[in-house]
Amino acid sequence: MDKQQLIDNIRRKQTFLCVGLDTDIRKIPQHLLAEEDPVFAFNRAVIDATAPYCIAYKPNLAFYECLGVKGWQALEKTVRYIRDRYPDQFIIADAKRGDIGNTSAMYARSFFEDLKVDAVTVAPYMGEDSVTPFLTHDGTWAILLALTSNKGSRDFQLEEDAQGERLFEKVLRKSQAWADNGRMMYVVGATQGRMFEDIRRIAPRHFLLVPGVGAQGGSLEEVCRYGMTPECGLIVNSSRAIIYAGQGRDFAEAARQAAQEVQQQMAAQLKAIFQP
Amino acid sequence: MDKQQLIDNIRRKQTFLCVGLDTDIRKIPQHLLAEEDPVFAFNRAVIDATAPYCIAYKPNLAFYECLGVKGWQALEKTVRYIRDRYPDQFIIADAKRGDIGNTSAMYARSFFEDLKVDAVTVAPYMGEDSVTPFLTHDGTWAILLALTSNKGSRDFQLEEDAQGERLFEKVLRKSQAWADNGRMMYVVGATQGRMFEDIRRIAPRHFLLVPGVGAQGGSLEEVCRYGMTPECGLIVNSSRAIIYAGQGRDFAEAARQAAQEVQQQMAAQLKAIFQP
Repeated sequence: MDKQQLIDNIRRKQTFLCVGLDTDIRKIPQHLLAEEDPVFAFNRAVIDATAPYCIAYKPNLAFYECLGVKGWQALEKTVRYIRDRYPDQFIIADAKRGDIGNTSAMYARSFFEDLKVDAVTVAPYMGEDSVTPFLTHDGTWAILLALTSNKGSRDFQLEEDAQGERLFEKVLRKSQAWADNGRMMYVVGATQGRMFEDIRRIAPRHFLLVPGVGAQGGSLEEVCRYGMTPECGLIVNSSRAIIYAGQGRDFAEAARQAAQEVQQQMAAQLKAIFQP
Repeated sequence: MDKQQLIDNIRRKQTFLCVGLDTDIRKIPQHLLAEEDPVFAFNRAVIDATAPYCIAYKPNLAFYECLGVKGWQALEKTVRYIRDRYPDQFIIADAKRGDIGNTSAMYARSFFEDLKVDAVTVAPYMGEDSVTPFLTHDGTWAILLALTSNKGSRDFQLEEDAQGERLFEKVLRKSQAWADNGRMMYVVGATQGRMFEDIRRIAPRHFLLVPGVGAQGGSLEEVCRYGMTPECGLIVNSSRAIIYAGQGRDFAEAARQAAQEVQQQMAAQLKAIFQP
């Protein structure tokens, strides 16, 4: 999916919500455990309920890998289901990969050619040749970790060099030489508040994938105030607060309500940039 | 496996070679493609041939993930085969994972409890809470990326802060507060030459996992000169130069010869620290 299609979807659906499919088999409703593939059954129900209110889905690979072969099957089925049923959804493999060039190229093939997702999250620590293999497939994206939502983001990402440039700023600056804003996005945690101003000084037009709204405590309003661009420029992810909104047989309806609530808040924010 | 067992294996077998199972289905001998599981068939033959000459195996997850469900099955069979047949081998999942705490915990469970490897490679960018979940399983290890073997290692890892501390040095220093050298190792590329001296100033007793000898051009002698400790402290990986030493039906014999050659070079290096 290219940048203009993404912007069009956001404008049309009045939402920039990404639903994080962090599906933990120990947390899904009991009655689903009788299904042949409980994780996929859960995902399918959540997707059908939330699709009108979001423009993206983000399965976190950890939650599938931990189930081995079965998890990988559930992931493949989930991606194929979204692709076939909701072709306007942007699919992000939250994998945080990054390795030497020939290995990153294997990952890129795996995610873009076999699994057929639109984007993969990538860790920047190993530098240019670990990232560029994710930038060579048409219509797909690398989403580079810049400033993450967790406490540990302070350990290295905020460290300043002799010129006062912080590591996440260096990542933003250097990586812009590797691809333009039609191929690369950045992960910036919703918990980072006013740091979005600093991000926008360096990357004024890039889309940002923003985790951390909901269970992690980030504020949607603050993210929009400091991070929104005239093209929106934000994909805000919520995982647990939506997919586990309900615990019983009505879990999908609860997820629908939670997603719709966020969509309405987002529609209000979008008034600032898009005419209705 | 604990540190003393690892050192005992190195001393007994006179080798600190790790064979990297970067098994690319497009590069394995043609005749194996008729097998039900060509990747596993290749790995099993390579393992049987090389086990006397190495103390560790390191499957790189990218090469298995790119085959989807089949790749994951081949990986599980490979790890189980090593575990059952060669219980003294140290098994490293080269995964370069690292995510927010609850997600890293999922990865750690996946690798240590389900796949049952001894160690996982972890990327440090997201800081302490992304790494510590890999440090809580008894007898298992996190191997943190410090100074990698690729060209891109210069992009961020060598950047200095205002006090002149480089990022990889900061990773080495800060991470030592998270676990001792019986739980954590570091990745340092063989291509880094005399930088091993700088590494040893900060981490004098940690084991280092050293990729980059062979196809990537690193020198074993240099690595030993600047990186070896009285306990050896090195696990040197070679992937392509061993597993693709031969291309035909005699591939396993070629791998055996290549591994044995490296083992003999290593035995010569070990004379400096272990009495025969």
